[in-house]
Amino acid sequence: MSDDTIRDGELFTALPDSYDASLYFIGRIRTPWVERKDCPRRGDVNGPVCQIEIDPRWQGALLGIEKHKELQILYWMDLARRDLIVQVPRSNGEKAGTFALRSPVRPNPIASSIVSVFAASKTTLLVRGLDCVDGTPLLDIKPHFSREDD
Amino acid sequence: MSDDTIRDGELFTALPDSYDASLYFIGRIRTPWVERKDCPRRGDVNGPVCQIEIDPRWQGALLGIEKHKELQILYWMDLARRDLIVQVPRSNGEKAGTFALRSPVRPNPIASSIVSVFAASKTTLLVRGLDCVDGTPLLDIKPHFSREDD
Repeated sequence: MSDDTIRDGELFTALPDSYDASLYFIGRIRTPWVERKDCPRRGDVNGPVCQIEIDPRWQGALLGIEKHKELQILYWMDLARRDLIVQVPRSNGEKAGTFALRSPVRPNPIASSIVSVFAASKTTLLVRGLDCVDGTPLLDIKPHFSREDD
Repeated sequence: MSDDTIRDGELFTALPDSYDASLYFIGRIRTPWVERKDCPRRGDVNGPVCQIEIDPRWQGALLGIEKHKELQILYWMDLARRDLIVQVPRSNGEKAGTFALRSPVRPNPIASSIVSVFAASKTTLLVRGLDCVDGTPLLDIKPHFSREDD
């Protein structure tokens, strides 16, 4: 697994003995990318259509979603290691702290993307702008307001 | 607790029997707001200075953070109930699904704010743009790239 390799200059820490809070997966994200190496580095609002599937338990929670053209999607990057403090991204080979990167490798691997929505039913959304592997667990959906809307 | 009250028109669901993933609190956020009712509805980049304190375990992870003027901060809204599907916000009295709102009441109460940074040490950041109560648990820090930077 590429996830377990450390590159020259990278540093890791001992993770805490216990967790502090817990998450429910509320659905799944369907994308054209089967493996992490296939994924784009960042979502593109002109990229392919992806489908967000919400578990039936939460279906009423999309009420009024059609008012929002842009949504913020939070999802769980469950393939990533969580203990790196300093990383050396392959893209530029420059050492940087985990919090100075948007790498999936981080203590809490929560990804956040802004997507454009163009279709919604009670349990699915069709969107553009995601960058994750097919089957990625969904954590949250929120309306996105840009600063310009303020 | 206002957290446990349900307003007319609100709907809740039974939460799943078990969790799917877990989080580490990586630090705390210090703000001028002692109670939730004191907090602004949304962070303001011209608002008061808040201090983000990172646990010593993660201090190396801020390496290079000074390159970024804007950061995305994820934090845990641990005072919120998690089972509401439809909500009636006090601000407008209109029924809306949880995913059509940025309310702290949601299955995974992860908040996301964009902040301006104006000072950084190895374990603290001074920022503007937060909206949470003093002592809020910190989940993540990432560089923020606006669409315009693409």
